[in-house]
Formats: sequence, C-alpha cells, structure tokens
Amino acid sequence: MAELAELGEAELIAKLSCFAAAGQFDDDAALLAPDQQLQRVISTDAMVEGVHFSANTTPAFSVGWRAAAANLSDLAAMGCLEAEGITVALAAPGHTPLAWVEAVYGGLSALLKRHNCQLLGGDCSSAPVVMLAITAIGKVAADRLIRRGAGRAGDRLVVSGPHGLSGLGLQLLQNPNDPATSHLSESLKQAAIKAHQQPIPRFDAVAALHQSQPAACPWRVAGTDSSDGLRRSLELLGNACGHQPMLDLNMGPLEPWCLDGGEDFELVLALDPLWADNFVAQLPGAQCIGWLGDKPGPPCWLSNKKPLPVGRGYEHFKGN
Amino acid sequence: MAELAELGEAELIAKLSCFAAAGQFDDDAALLAPDQQLQRVISTDAMVEGVHFSANTTPAFSVGWRAAAANLSDLAAMGCLEAEGITVALAAPGHTPLAWVEAVYGGLSALLKRHNCQLLGGDCSSAPVVMLAITAIGKVAADRLIRRGAGRAGDRLVVSGPHGLSGLGLQLLQNPNDPATSHLSESLKQAAIKAHQQPIPRFDAVAALHQSQPAACPWRVAGTDSSDGLRRSLELLGNACGHQPMLDLNMGPLEPWCLDGGEDFELVLALDPLWADNFVAQLPGAQCIGWLGDKPGPPCWLSNKKPLPVGRGYEHFKGN
Repeated sequence: MAELAELGEAELIAKLSCFAAAGQFDDDAALLAPDQQLQRVISTDAMVEGVHFSANTTPAFSVGWRAAAANLSDLAAMGCLEAEGITVALAAPGHTPLAWVEAVYGGLSALLKRHNCQLLGGDCSSAPVVMLAITAIGKVAADRLIRRGAGRAGDRLVVSGPHGLSGLGLQLLQNPNDPATSHLSESLKQAAIKAHQQPIPRFDAVAALHQSQPAACPWRVAGTDSSDGLRRSLELLGNACGHQPMLDLNMGPLEPWCLDGGEDFELVLALDPLWADNFVAQLPGAQCIGWLGDKPGPPCWLSNKKPLPVGRGYEHFKGN
Repeated sequence: MAELAELGEAELIAKLSCFAAAGQFDDDAALLAPDQQLQRVISTDAMVEGVHFSANTTPAFSVGWRAAAANLSDLAAMGCLEAEGITVALAAPGHTPLAWVEAVYGGLSALLKRHNCQLLGGDCSSAPVVMLAITAIGKVAADRLIRRGAGRAGDRLVVSGPHGLSGLGLQLLQNPNDPATSHLSESLKQAAIKAHQQPIPRFDAVAALHQSQPAACPWRVAGTDSSDGLRRSLELLGNACGHQPMLDLNMGPLEPWCLDGGEDFELVLALDPLWADNFVAQLPGAQCIGWLGDKPGPPCWLSNKKPLPVGRGYEHFKGN
C-alpha cells in the first residue's frame, strides 16, 4: 500500500485532483464562478487528529465527511441555501497510507456531492499529525442573512432537530459494550452512530425558513449552529442578542447530555412566534425549546430561572 | 506570560479579533463584500512548524508575514491586482505563549495592511505542533487572468525579480558565521534576510503587466510564482504550455542556488517578445531569462540543450 512518503506532494495532489472538477488544481489558485449581486460568505474550520477525531473511532471516510459538514453547517447558519465550494489544506505525516487520505477525500467528496458543492483547490503538506483545514464559500441574498444578534425579547427559540444523538454515537463507538447503552434499540444506536459519523448541514432548514416566513413578518432571523453543543449555541445567541435564553421543559425533553454533546450541527434559531409555529409545522423534527427573555443573561430554565447545569463542553488548548 | 492553555479557544479568538474589522469574528462565517462582474480567485496554503519554518530561524512576526505573503503571491500569479481578504486556521499546542501567537498575527496583519487586504475570519484549535492554514480571496477581470498554460513557442521567459535571495537569507540565519558567506556585504546580507523573513507578493508586477501591454498584443500571459523555486516554476509553466523552457545564460547569471532556493515569490512569466521588452523596461529588477521552445521538454540551457542540473528542492512527506 502506497504511503505519502513514496509519493511526494506533487504526485499526491495529482492523485487528489480526481476529486475536483477537471483542471481545478492546475493553477496557483482556484477560480470561483462569476457572481450576481449576492453576499459571499466564507468559513474556515480545522480538524486535528487526536483533538477532533481519533483514528480508532473515526473511519477516514467520516473524517472527511465531518470536516466538510462542519464548514457547510457554518454557511447554513449564515442563511446560505447552498455552498459554492471548499478548499482543503491537508497536513499529514509521511507514513500516512495513501488509501487513508483517499478515503478522507472520498468522504469529503460524498458530502459535497450531496449538496452540489465543489472542491475548489487546496494544499498538501507534511506534519507530525493529520490536520485538515477547510474553507467553504457560499452566497446569500444580503436581505436573507441569519445573524446571531438579530433576536428580540419574546422570540421563540427553535431547533431544527434533536440534540445529543451525535454525542451518543461517539459514546457507542468508544464503549460498544457499555451496560449504560445496552438497552437502546439497534435502530437508535445506528442512527446515533450515523449522526456522529455523517452529520448533515441543515440547508434544508434554511429552505424551510424561507417557505415558512409569514407574510406579516419581515426577514429577521437570529441563529447559529450547534457544532459546539446546544448550551454553547444558546450562550452565543443570547449574548449576541442581549436577551436571556429561557428553556421551557414543557416544550420537550432536554437531558443534560443533550446540552453539551456537541457536533449535532443543527440550527438554533430565535424567531417571531408566528414564524416559529409555521417553521416547526413545516420542518419535520424541528421543535420550539423556549424563549428569549427581556434582559441579558446566561441560558436558564424558564420554570425557575436557574441557570442550566454546568456542562462538559470541549475547550481547545486546555487539555481536556 | 499568558499561554493558550490558560485562555481557551473563545478568549483567544476574542484576543485575535482586534486584528480584523470590528464585528468580523461575530458570526459563524465571514462576509465578503458584494461584488461586480469579476472572477473570484481563492487560494489555500498551510505552514507547519518544523516543516515550513523553525522557531529558531523564523521570528513569530515573520511566520505570520510569510504565511500571508505566500497566499497573496498565489493570487498575484493568477493576475489579481490585489487581494480582498484571508481566513486563517491556527492550530497550536496549549503551551504556546499568547505573545507568540499575537506576534504571528501582527506579522500577518502588517503584510495585509501593506496590500490593503482584510483578515476575514478563521478558526483556532489545539494541536501538537503549530500549523497555520490560510485561504486568500481575490478578484480579477475574467479577460485579464494569468494561466500557467497560456504560453506559446517563441514567448520570452521573464522573471519579476532576482532568485536566490530568500535561500541565501535562510542560510545566513542558520549559519551566521559560515565562512562561505563571510565575504558578502552587510547590505546584501540584510537584504537577503529580509527577503526570507518578509517576502513581498508581486501585485506591482501584475500592475506593470497591465501598463506594459503593447497595443498590438491581446491579453495572453502565462505565469506562476516561484514559491517552490525557479526550476519548479519553469517545470510547471513548461508542462502546462507544452513548450520546453530554455534558459539563456547570456541574459543574466543563474547560479544553481538560484534555481532551487524557493520562497522568492517572484512571478515567472511567458510573454510575447514585444510585451516582454516593454515589461522589463517598465519594472525595475525584472529580467528576461530565456524562451519557450517549439516542443515539450524539461527546462534546459539554451546554449547546449542540456537539462538544468539536478536540484535539491523541498519535497513534502519524503523526510528531507
């Protein structure tokens, strides 16, 4: 099996060019299609071996899929209905098998194909561990943006889907024989593992936002994605809007492990109540989870105003 | 002195936001300005500690400057007259001093300011070594592109400036007391070190191309930058055009160490002879170095058709 050490950079790039449009890797930089009067959006995210994924629990296909999905999810969280393309900087040790790298790009390519998005270009470099830095570009009509700070008091908090599935999937992969999860159905286990290994950027939720906009509501959507966990996205949203997110347990179950699981890549939105009702009716799996309060403050329970229980979200650099 | 381990990701990002426009880091992705009917160009490059730079010979300021310059140079090599902005994915160990990271962004920022370019956004992550992956976006009129494959037989090969200075600078930094370089003037030494630590993307050479275009010549410019060495850029150009680059020693000195030094970030162009003469007259330091031959082939000397001496260019993954 060929290793990168046997190939060198140029040959590796030639090998990888089959994952992009013909000629796309032939110049010093990649071309984007000419554009109409739309707002361009660009997002960058890195995944590092041993930090964002482990070769033990994450197959190469899923490393690529997840890296691309994380970036595209950021574009959806800005209101893009689709992504134009991505660039990929890959750094990896010389002993990395070519097949592993090709499987990474295979996963990446499969996610891109699902969303009609192009691999535009990139860079390959040696490094002591695998790092994948992806930049994604999208377009959005300037008056259809989703911004974190657009929420107002009385807005409903809405999620595009359930939280915690991806975290459960990781737990199942790390401890397949854990008695704590042995009672779960096989179909739920498979769904959780799939949610972890092949998350879906919610462009469909953005489309549902467009379709569910009431005639009486001008476009005003606050939102972010829950890539760092539901609690973190509520914090970001609440801080940016200056209104305290208040979670209503009557609206649905919210186990603590749903708050900090992370990597669910759902949209977390604050909407006019009328729009929120339409949206939840429009999009299967979407759910109202609470309200934006009158004043600033950290996310709390609506019933007793107590802050959410302290979580275990991942912090980079702190040696979790 | 604060270390990243004490800050965590969010606080680091907050610290780094002062290097970008106000509010630029506030959302899930960064916005590009709305655009006219121009071709967008995007380029990605990664720099890895121990591979592209060593903390011993490269001050943090220069790590940032060079990483940004390398990306902007790719945009110039596509014909962009300027860059719009860049995103940066930074990965670094928890024990990295904050001051080091701020100096990196300081260097990056200084280069961007020089070229009126914005830091648009990015991502920070922990990793066992420092990696800086940069993506740059630029615009160019679709009929003013520089493409590697645009050269024709009889075109003159032109460089925007001298080669080897950056390599000499690195040598001086690695062995300041080397007898082989002790005879060089102090001003040359300083120029070489500056060329290595603070290379300049040659947008000015693109402007000179526009200014020197003869009325009789339609726009047709073949080119690339010499980031991987002059020999490598001649290979890329020759292969893409299907014409053998032939170097004319009578046109100027070309020591072997000028061929493979790398990281000079000059433009290497193939132009109509009339245009080439105008261009060299227009741009101080620019020089004709040879011709494109009738047939395909590797770079050779014009005088005896012998291939250039085998080089020592850097190959990723191969454990140089």
